[in-house]
Amino acid sequence: MLANDKLRQKNSAQKFICVGLDPDIKKIPKNLKSKSNPILEFNKLIIENTADLAAAYKFNLAFYERDGSSGINTLIESIKLIPSEILIIGDGKRGDIGNTSEKYAEMLYDEFKFDSATLNPYMGLDSIKPFLNYDSKLNFILALTSNPSASDFEKLLLVNNSYLYQEVIRKVHIWNEKKNCGLVFGATNKAELENDIGLFGDMPILLPGVGEQGGSLGDIVSLFKQKGLKNYLINVSRGIIYKSSSDDFWEAARNELKFMNETVHSIYKS
Amino acid sequence: MLANDKLRQKNSAQKFICVGLDPDIKKIPKNLKSKSNPILEFNKLIIENTADLAAAYKFNLAFYERDGSSGINTLIESIKLIPSEILIIGDGKRGDIGNTSEKYAEMLYDEFKFDSATLNPYMGLDSIKPFLNYDSKLNFILALTSNPSASDFEKLLLVNNSYLYQEVIRKVHIWNEKKNCGLVFGATNKAELENDIGLFGDMPILLPGVGEQGGSLGDIVSLFKQKGLKNYLINVSRGIIYKSSSDDFWEAARNELKFMNETVHSIYKS
Repeated sequence: MLANDKLRQKNSAQKFICVGLDPDIKKIPKNLKSKSNPILEFNKLIIENTADLAAAYKFNLAFYERDGSSGINTLIESIKLIPSEILIIGDGKRGDIGNTSEKYAEMLYDEFKFDSATLNPYMGLDSIKPFLNYDSKLNFILALTSNPSASDFEKLLLVNNSYLYQEVIRKVHIWNEKKNCGLVFGATNKAELENDIGLFGDMPILLPGVGEQGGSLGDIVSLFKQKGLKNYLINVSRGIIYKSSSDDFWEAARNELKFMNETVHSIYKS
Repeated sequence: MLANDKLRQKNSAQKFICVGLDPDIKKIPKNLKSKSNPILEFNKLIIENTADLAAAYKFNLAFYERDGSSGINTLIESIKLIPSEILIIGDGKRGDIGNTSEKYAEMLYDEFKFDSATLNPYMGLDSIKPFLNYDSKLNFILALTSNPSASDFEKLLLVNNSYLYQEVIRKVHIWNEKKNCGLVFGATNKAELENDIGLFGDMPILLPGVGEQGGSLGDIVSLFKQKGLKNYLINVSRGIIYKSSSDDFWEAARNELKFMNETVHSIYKS
C-alpha cells in the first residue's frame, strides 16, 4: 500500500495523531524491566492499545541507535508489530552526499521497511534525491522545526525576502515530481503556521511539538480545517507514551489518544 | 587523550589525510567475500596498512547502518582496530531536538567511543548542544559541503550580506566556548575556501571532497600553509580504499596514502 494512501485513509477517518515511539529505558515502568526486552515490551503494549486510534507511528531512530545493535533489533521487531495499513515513519533527519544518502535510503526503506522518513534539507537536492527515487514512500523534509533554536538558521531572512524555511518549502515543491514529498513544520510556531499554511499546497505535513514542547492540538486542527487541508499528522510522543509511569501506562496512553481524537472530532463537528 | 590533542599531534607530524572507511560490499575484492565478516576484514587490512600514515579515520555511518544490527557490530569491531592515538570520526551528520540529540551524542561518544562527530546545523544551537557538553570530543559542524547541491541552501545570501554557510561559521565560533568545535568545508569549493579561510580562526577544519568528488589536495595544502593554519584534515574515502579492486587493495591504498603524504611534505618543504 502506498504511503500516501495509508495517510489519506487514516486522515479520511479523521485520524491525525501520530504516536511517537521514543522509548527511554529510564522512563519505562519498573515492572517491564524484568522482561528480556523491556523496550520491545513497552512498544508492544503501546501499539496494541493505540493501533485502532492512531493515524501513524513515528520511530525516533536516536532512541534505538543509542543502544547499538540490540537497539536496532528492537527497532526492527517493533516495526513488525505495526498493522500493515498504518503509516510508519523513520525519524532520523538524515541528509548526506548522494552515494551516502543512497545507503540511508536503502537502510530506511529496503532494510527497515519504513513507509516514510524525515530528512534534513541543508545539503540540498542531491542529498535528498536517493529518497525521491522511491515512488511509494513519503519523504518528510524539515522546513521549520519545533525547537527554540529554529530561529538560529531556519528563520533567517534571505535577500529574496523569504525566510530560509520558506525557501525550503518552495524548493521541495519543485522536488515533488513523484508526489512523494511532505514537510515537517513545528506545531510550536503558531504565527508562522498561520502565515505560511498557504505555501503547503497539497503536500502532507508532519507537525511535531504538541504537548511537552508547547504546541496546541486544537489550534492546529482548527487552522487546517479552516484552510481545507486534509493530509497532515500531528506527532505526540512523550504526551502519550509517558502519560503515566505506572504499570498500566498503556491504558493512560490509550485514554490520552482517545481524548485527543475526540478533541479533533469536536472541532470538525463544530 | 583529548580529540584536539590527537589531531594536533598528527598535524604536527605533517599528517593531514583522514582515511574514510565507507565499505561497500559490492566494491570489495572477491577473495574477502568468503570470510565470515568481509567488511570487517576489509577494514582491518586497510587500517593495518595505513595506521602509521593516516591523520585520522572517518566512519561513514550510513555504510554500516545500512546492514542493520550486523552492520552496527561491524562498526563497533572496526572502531576497536584503530590505534588509540588516532582520531576517529563518526560521520553521521546528525542534528535533532535536544532530548533526541542527547541520545545521538550518547550513541556516538559513550556507546561507540568516537572522538569526534559530524553534525548538521540546520536546527540550530539546541540541536548541537548535547554534543558541546562533551569537553574532550571534537564536533565538526557542516558549513559548506562538497556536493553540487550545496548551492541550494548553504550558498543562499542572507539580508546581512552573508551566505548561510558563513552565518553558520559565525555562530559556531560563539558555540565554541569549550574549544570542541570544528567545521566541515568541502574541498570542491575552491573559490569559497580561498575567500573564507580567514573566517576559520583556530577551529579545526574537516575537508571532504578530494579525489572522486574533484577537490585538489595540493590546492588545499598550499592554501592552509600560506595562511599558517595547522589543524585540518583532508578526507579521502574512495580514492584510497578503492584505489585497487584486486586482492592486494590494501597495498594500493597504502601506496596512495603514502603518495598523498609525500605531496603534502613537498608543499611544506617548498
